[in-house]
Amino acid sequence: MRVVRMTAVAIAAMTIAGTVESATGALDLMPVPAQLELGASALVVNDAFTVVTEGQGAGPRLDRGVRRMLRRLSDRTTLFFANATFLDLANHADPVLVVRADRIGRVELGEDESYRLAVTEGGIRLEAVTDIGALRGLETLLQLVVLDERGVSLPEVSIVDRPRFPWRGLMIDSSRHFMPMEVLRRNLDGMAAVKLNVLHWHLVDDQGFRVESPALPKLHELGSDGLYYTRAQIREIIDYAADRGIRVVPEFDLPGHGTAWLTAYPELASAPGPYEIERSWGIFDPTVDPTIEATYTFLEVFLAEMAELFDDAFIHIGGDENNGKDWLANPEIVAFMEANGYHEPLALQRYFNERVLAILTRNGKRMIGWDEIFQNGLPKDIVIQSWRGRESLYESARLGYSGILSNGYYIDLIHPTSDHYLNDPLPADAPLSADESARILGGEATMWAEFVSPETVDSRIWPRTAAIAERLWSPGAVRDLEDMYRRLDRVSLRLEELGLLHERNRPVMLRRLCGCRDTAALEVLLGAIEPVKVYNRGRLRAHTQFSPLTRMVDAAWPDAEPAREFGRAVERLREAGVTDVEDRTAVRRSLEIWRDNHAAVAATLTGSPGLTEILPMSAALAEVSVIGLEALSVAETGKDITRDWFEDRLARLEAARESHGQTELVVVDPVVSLVCVAAGRLAARAEECRPADDAPTAAGH
Amino acid sequence: MRVVRMTAVAIAAMTIAGTVESATGALDLMPVPAQLELGASALVVNDAFTVVTEGQGAGPRLDRGVRRMLRRLSDRTTLFFANATFLDLANHADPVLVVRADRIGRVELGEDESYRLAVTEGGIRLEAVTDIGALRGLETLLQLVVLDERGVSLPEVSIVDRPRFPWRGLMIDSSRHFMPMEVLRRNLDGMAAVKLNVLHWHLVDDQGFRVESPALPKLHELGSDGLYYTRAQIREIIDYAADRGIRVVPEFDLPGHGTAWLTAYPELASAPGPYEIERSWGIFDPTVDPTIEATYTFLEVFLAEMAELFDDAFIHIGGDENNGKDWLANPEIVAFMEANGYHEPLALQRYFNERVLAILTRNGKRMIGWDEIFQNGLPKDIVIQSWRGRESLYESARLGYSGILSNGYYIDLIHPTSDHYLNDPLPADAPLSADESARILGGEATMWAEFVSPETVDSRIWPRTAAIAERLWSPGAVRDLEDMYRRLDRVSLRLEELGLLHERNRPVMLRRLCGCRDTAALEVLLGAIEPVKVYNRGRLRAHTQFSPLTRMVDAAWPDAEPAREFGRAVERLREAGVTDVEDRTAVRRSLEIWRDNHAAVAATLTGSPGLTEILPMSAALAEVSVIGLEALSVAETGKDITRDWFEDRLARLEAARESHGQTELVVVDPVVSLVCVAAGRLAARAEECRPADDAPTAAGH
Repeated sequence: MRVVRMTAVAIAAMTIAGTVESATGALDLMPVPAQLELGASALVVNDAFTVVTEGQGAGPRLDRGVRRMLRRLSDRTTLFFANATFLDLANHADPVLVVRADRIGRVELGEDESYRLAVTEGGIRLEAVTDIGALRGLETLLQLVVLDERGVSLPEVSIVDRPRFPWRGLMIDSSRHFMPMEVLRRNLDGMAAVKLNVLHWHLVDDQGFRVESPALPKLHELGSDGLYYTRAQIREIIDYAADRGIRVVPEFDLPGHGTAWLTAYPELASAPGPYEIERSWGIFDPTVDPTIEATYTFLEVFLAEMAELFDDAFIHIGGDENNGKDWLANPEIVAFMEANGYHEPLALQRYFNERVLAILTRNGKRMIGWDEIFQNGLPKDIVIQSWRGRESLYESARLGYSGILSNGYYIDLIHPTSDHYLNDPLPADAPLSADESARILGGEATMWAEFVSPETVDSRIWPRTAAIAERLWSPGAVRDLEDMYRRLDRVSLRLEELGLLHERNRPVMLRRLCGCRDTAALEVLLGAIEPVKVYNRGRLRAHTQFSPLTRMVDAAWPDAEPAREFGRAVERLREAGVTDVEDRTAVRRSLEIWRDNHAAVAATLTGSPGLTEILPMSAALAEVSVIGLEALSVAETGKDITRDWFEDRLARLEAARESHGQTELVVVDPVVSLVCVAAGRLAARAEECRPADDAPTAAGH
Repeated sequence: MRVVRMTAVAIAAMTIAGTVESATGALDLMPVPAQLELGASALVVNDAFTVVTEGQGAGPRLDRGVRRMLRRLSDRTTLFFANATFLDLANHADPVLVVRADRIGRVELGEDESYRLAVTEGGIRLEAVTDIGALRGLETLLQLVVLDERGVSLPEVSIVDRPRFPWRGLMIDSSRHFMPMEVLRRNLDGMAAVKLNVLHWHLVDDQGFRVESPALPKLHELGSDGLYYTRAQIREIIDYAADRGIRVVPEFDLPGHGTAWLTAYPELASAPGPYEIERSWGIFDPTVDPTIEATYTFLEVFLAEMAELFDDAFIHIGGDENNGKDWLANPEIVAFMEANGYHEPLALQRYFNERVLAILTRNGKRMIGWDEIFQNGLPKDIVIQSWRGRESLYESARLGYSGILSNGYYIDLIHPTSDHYLNDPLPADAPLSADESARILGGEATMWAEFVSPETVDSRIWPRTAAIAERLWSPGAVRDLEDMYRRLDRVSLRLEELGLLHERNRPVMLRRLCGCRDTAALEVLLGAIEPVKVYNRGRLRAHTQFSPLTRMVDAAWPDAEPAREFGRAVERLREAGVTDVEDRTAVRRSLEIWRDNHAAVAATLTGSPGLTEILPMSAALAEVSVIGLEALSVAETGKDITRDWFEDRLARLEAARESHGQTELVVVDPVVSLVCVAAGRLAARAEECRPADDAPTAAGH
């Protein structure tokens, strides 16, 4: 067996070789394990598969985990396992799989999640310190399953694995749009599949208060439109998560983002009110008054109740984006600030944070909050979640504070997977000592919910979050983009087996838009457009909590695969010249499909506002494609082009960047490259390839 | 406006005519309303849409219903309605839609569900006696929405509608496979969309006891594998259903189907035990002992608890398929029977039923059960659910008892929609007086869950159950199959908007089977095969509760549309001769696609047991298609054929009927027809077209 320290290139290059001639592919593990040895043989799995669990850690949680693994293995392979395989995990002589855990793990920060997994021709052995580690290993096991001519098998392999960071989270915002229980359950399944271990549950924001509070019932009664989680449901999610070794950290955002709180209890507000649930998106003024004792009396009751309801050691108090307006407009608050020497709202917020921290501490909880909660002098056991960036995180680390990174993992902003994937909380050149580095606990993807519904939220979380999960689990050296995308495509199919709707809902959305079954032309269009990025969607069209999230922009994926493939092929042509026949053919074929697609899109249009708005995108795609085909032809034939042609085509390409229906065309840059190549300029961007004063030359490669 | 009494042909023929030139299609209503007048104009819907509710029936339930309607209307059209449209249903001057209900409806048998819906160019008026009737009308309104070149509109229409039968149900079996909450919720949404009004919830069977019983906790603790509904969840479903005007009738199957009861309380059994949850499918012996008082003491406690938990007037006590074996094997029970003059188990079961009925009556509930509970002399307010058939139902109706039909609506048996659709509980020639006819309350589709999982159950219920819903709601004269299938195809798309997974899960299942993304060849194959019918699946391969339901048979639909279209085209050729070019072309094209598909299927195969087992079906389809092409060519050219050719082809077609992987080829019959046509025999079945002793003649049409 070969010992391989993992890099993505190494794992991509691996094939099951030697005696197993029929094996076809590389391994599809995500996240890539810390260490892997691959052998030449394989274990064949058939109906006679059996499992035993053993060790002090083999309790009900591990047994449930094994049964879920068996269910998924049977479902994927259609093998008929015997009843006893599911019911009895103790009494099989000569079991195929032995799962051993030495102790029951605690669902808490820093628990041991390591495991060793050995597959040989004769059987599988999975060993872990804790049952949580064993659950992580079971997910790896399922990713190893191969279906090929031989039937069902796992390659001979020996894996030693452990996470790089102890805090690997996904934040789900249930406030802006309420997310029903099944959304949380299926996403917890997805998180477990890629070894994430924290669900950060954003339960309160201006647009809704989503947790039942028997002690302060106006919170959920007046603050939620009836859309909240009962205590029983919250417990159900906590238990469901714990069963998968996942912590649940609730967030109750304070003192800003306060509209829902204050709709229920306006007497705690910094301004007179009245308040009602906010229906729009943005940063709003309503803010809790930190200068009155009633606020702390209230929070004593509320946080004690929540401390009892939630198991985790941490409670997230938000703390972000308090604009201070309502404080500075209130003479009593201003007087309080002056009396206490607080010269700015942030100083008053620090006072508030200290009071809140005291309450949390009395209730046995640790505090986590966004960057704004940080101030030197707070106890060292708080944790900072940085939306601002690494520099902010490192600064507090140097002062002795732990933190996690979310900047760069804002999956609501529709950045491509590659951006998130390469965003390392602790790159090799991070300017931190070893002790300081140890305070970088990990990171969290953040699914802010302004522009997602239960129907679309999975498609914004997955599969991109699997790449973030790899960044937080796998060695930092694993960062090959091409291999990541290859594995991500496989992992996406495995995630949908869990019930996630990220792939299957797109055809449904297209059928609804056209009121038809033949959505092929719309699918082709979606291969070349993406939602506008960052915060542009809300800027380009005013949305509220009631706006439909059923348009092409919602069906479009953040990282359109056909456009990405096209861009890579163009990039290779640009670098190597247009001599590669395969790439030339692929580029021409894509451009022809896009050029010809417009007539079909126009024929699909039924007058639905949701399709009418997107028609200009389809027309622009056709025009851009015609330009691309021209440029490719020029580049291939070495034909002379005029400066006018060049200027005209670049101008038309720039015009094609205009967004419609909050989508943007993502194949403009590659076509600009083609025009540059045609003009004999090997530059990636229009401004760089702009010809000098001499007339453009014919491309001659 | 034209007044039209509804038949399906009439509705199919309707188009929005006159001034609205762009209108394209017929109405897609399902169920068809009792009376409809169609005008020439239309109401255009835009962002400025507003609604008010009014009348004594305009309470929170109606408001929630209107908000759900608005959500769906906005989602389908992508119209951005203002916040106020969703939040305020009272204060719009000149609203587009006025919904009036005269009183709050009761969610009980026989409540008024009628409504009147009038759409004019100027607005929409929906009026109903009860808010439940108004909810029914809102569903019709959503089915009227048209997307076309003009944007979003509703045709000018005046509808007066009421149900034909008061009991229109869907039974969901949560015992054989547990169905999570979201399965029930989304299916309740589907039921409401097609105006069904009873969820019959089969909560207990040999394979699982699915309701929490704090009074008798061993029932859910020992009888369910932990898969049961808490009382809070049961209440949630009852409230969710009531919000849609749907009753929830729970079934606690007794005294047979008793394994789960007796796993928890073996002291109530007729045989010594011990018992454990049954994992297989079939009819089993474990039966409650009706001769000991402990049984009734137990049932007093249990039924009182359930009578308090469930709102509906009815409790279903099952009563089916008690084989009596354990009774006759128990000397004490036999002695009891002799002492009381019970000469057969059914007599003893009648004694048991009377005791149970007395308990139900004391708890203010009415009894419903399967055919076996019936005995003359019981109070007339019980209801019989007939799995045996109309004759059984009519017999009790003549004796004064009410009943509902389920025979013919067993959707688990994979019959085509047309069979269920034409199955009328009360056909025009039913041998019943008017009074007797009035006792036929309706019917229920039954989703027995041996062979469905949460992933597949929607595809077994929908869209076929929409056709059953029409049978139970619409006038009996509405029975045109072609138009039903046309509308069903549209309704299926609207059902998936509600979150039902019946369409979207098939591609997911195929991707899992092949571990690939290109599932086109498997889709083509699924166009020509269906799951084996009736109870053959279990006969052909032993299944248990743990067997995978992820195979081609599970992805296959009960009523394969391409095969159905092919069969109809062949039928037309058979009847009219092979002169119709369009039908000839369609038939040839289908046969060529199926013939050529086999290579692609074989290439898709990865060795997955789930695909390997289906390969013979693909080969058979190719062979049958080759025969069909030969026969078509003979018929077209009038070429002579030999008796040998004829005999050989028929024999090969018969051989192609062999099932594999519990699927069957459903295009054999039409190809037999083609061979018959080629042989100059215009018969529909092989035996009828078998040539006489004279040599087969050339086909000459």
